[in-house]
Amino acid sequence: MFVNRYTFRIEWGDCDAAGIVFYPRYFALFDAATHHLFEAAGWRQPDMRREFDMIGIPMVDTRAKFLLASSFGDDIVIETRIVALRNSSFDVLHRVWKGEDLAIEATETRVWAGPHPDDPKRMKGQAIPEIVRRRLSETSHE
Amino acid sequence: MFVNRYTFRIEWGDCDAAGIVFYPRYFALFDAATHHLFEAAGWRQPDMRREFDMIGIPMVDTRAKFLLASSFGDDIVIETRIVALRNSSFDVLHRVWKGEDLAIEATETRVWAGPHPDDPKRMKGQAIPEIVRRRLSETSHE
Amino acid sequence: MFVNRYTFRIEWGDCDAAGIVFYPRYFALFDAATHHLFEAAGWRQPDMRREFDMIGIPMVDTRAKFLLASSFGDDIVIETRIVALRNSSFDVLHRVWKGEDLAIEATETRVWAGPHPDDPKRMKGQAIPEIVRRRLSETSHE
Amino acid sequence: MFVNRYTFRIEWGDCDAAGIVFYPRYFALFDAATHHLFEAAGWRQPDMRREFDMIGIPMVDTRAKFLLASSFGDDIVIETRIVALRNSSFDVLHRVWKGEDLAIEATETRVWAGPHPDDPKRMKGQAIPEIVRRRLSETSHE
Repeated sequence: MFVNRYTFRIEWGDCDAAGIVFYPRYFALFDAATHHLFEAAGWRQPDMRREFDMIGIPMVDTRAKFLLASSFGDDIVIETRIVALRNSSFDVLHRVWKGEDLAIEATETRVWAGPHPDDPKRMKGQAIPEIVRRRLSETSHE
Repeated sequence: MFVNRYTFRIEWGDCDAAGIVFYPRYFALFDAATHHLFEAAGWRQPDMRREFDMIGIPMVDTRAKFLLASSFGDDIVIETRIVALRNSSFDVLHRVWKGEDLAIEATETRVWAGPHPDDPKRMKGQAIPEIVRRRLSETSHE
Repeated sequence: MFVNRYTFRIEWGDCDAAGIVFYPRYFALFDAATHHLFEAAGWRQPDMRREFDMIGIPMVDTRAKFLLASSFGDDIVIETRIVALRNSSFDVLHRVWKGEDLAIEATETRVWAGPHPDDPKRMKGQAIPEIVRRRLSETSHE
Repeated sequence: MFVNRYTFRIEWGDCDAAGIVFYPRYFALFDAATHHLFEAAGWRQPDMRREFDMIGIPMVDTRAKFLLASSFGDDIVIETRIVALRNSSFDVLHRVWKGEDLAIEATETRVWAGPHPDDPKRMKGQAIPEIVRRRLSETSHE
């Protein structure tokens, strides 16, 4: 399946009073990493919203295991891949590397969501378009 | 003019590796404090958007002077007041108190903005409604 | 086991462009909620660091399931409880309520960590002090 | 004086419910940008702390004027330069560019701070080392 890598420099403001990254920051980076993966696959989110009748890819379930802490000035690589594609939802795996060492392993399940037929302010899962599904299934990028 | 006070407990995640509040966090608190002031005056932002043909109160200019640092577990009081009301913009003053000591003094200029006539995705300043102007000019709350 | 409740008003800055809370923000709230639980049990983190030879309670594993989205102006209640106490680690369960509805269920595993004997800049799990263990096992607060 | 440029992609999580960058995020970017400027001059913050008897460069006064909003997916360039060097403090100017257009102009005054002689937990301004002063005064990088 599709893979993308994204290098991030840990900034001063990402760290807490113990001098290590405040872990909620990683979830913001993972959110960015998933958007970067879709961009690498061909669609930035504004493109997706224009091209398909969809609103976003809201998170329904996420888990992270923290193996190694990182600090200000560290360069980490977030390796993001699609690991499952279902009709209207998909799973993403993020691995954070510090050099050769695995620092974090995180998974997320998201829904491909469009407007809810009964209430345009709410969202509802809908089928992932075939062209998106096909592109995300490619391995060429790996 | 109208004044509101808002007490905030500094959380672990608000602090940086020097153990003091990472200053961008204060601007998020000031943004919340300005919204709280409007709520105390009678309008939460969703109410404002429903009741008036407006979108938001975007920031155009803000400045903060930091006199005393705060740390995890500190309780600060943010005292927020309207200090100027013009046709389509207004000025807010935030004073952050640690007990009797002034810790930060910040000002902001915001615009009362509605949809731009030429492009609904952009915003444009418009006259602050008379009822809002009147309520924000009251001193009773002080 | 010990339970604590913490009410939080969703602020404008907590929400993303879809108008719902940007989910990494919840992890910052959960971090605050766990600290609030310890404070309710008798120790703010600076107290813990002074009273015991410990540095912090770093996260090793966390998972959240998002059932209902929340928006600007919503008041949510975060109900936090200890669900497991081991020698040097413990599990926390957070339930986020919107009125009667369960909005999020999140778990976390943290370590009670002190300075690493070989490198004071690193941390190492150590036995949770008996008095902390006893207090967190109490049910009176529920 | 010394200048550095830093390109930043606006992420989904940087934006608020109006679809534009939540302005406190810019201050986090400016903080990163100032650290990047020092790194370009030769010192990452851990290096500074090791090489000189200093703790950090805390903010004492900052102001930002917002001319153009930015949205998810925009690439902005933050152009950062030292505009004044005093004995123990200095001024930084950040200009945010969207293509040819100036989007934000921000200034900050920071102190070169070391441990306070009377209380190691507090900070105190101290003379900026000559080598730092000399390097920051160079124009070659512009």
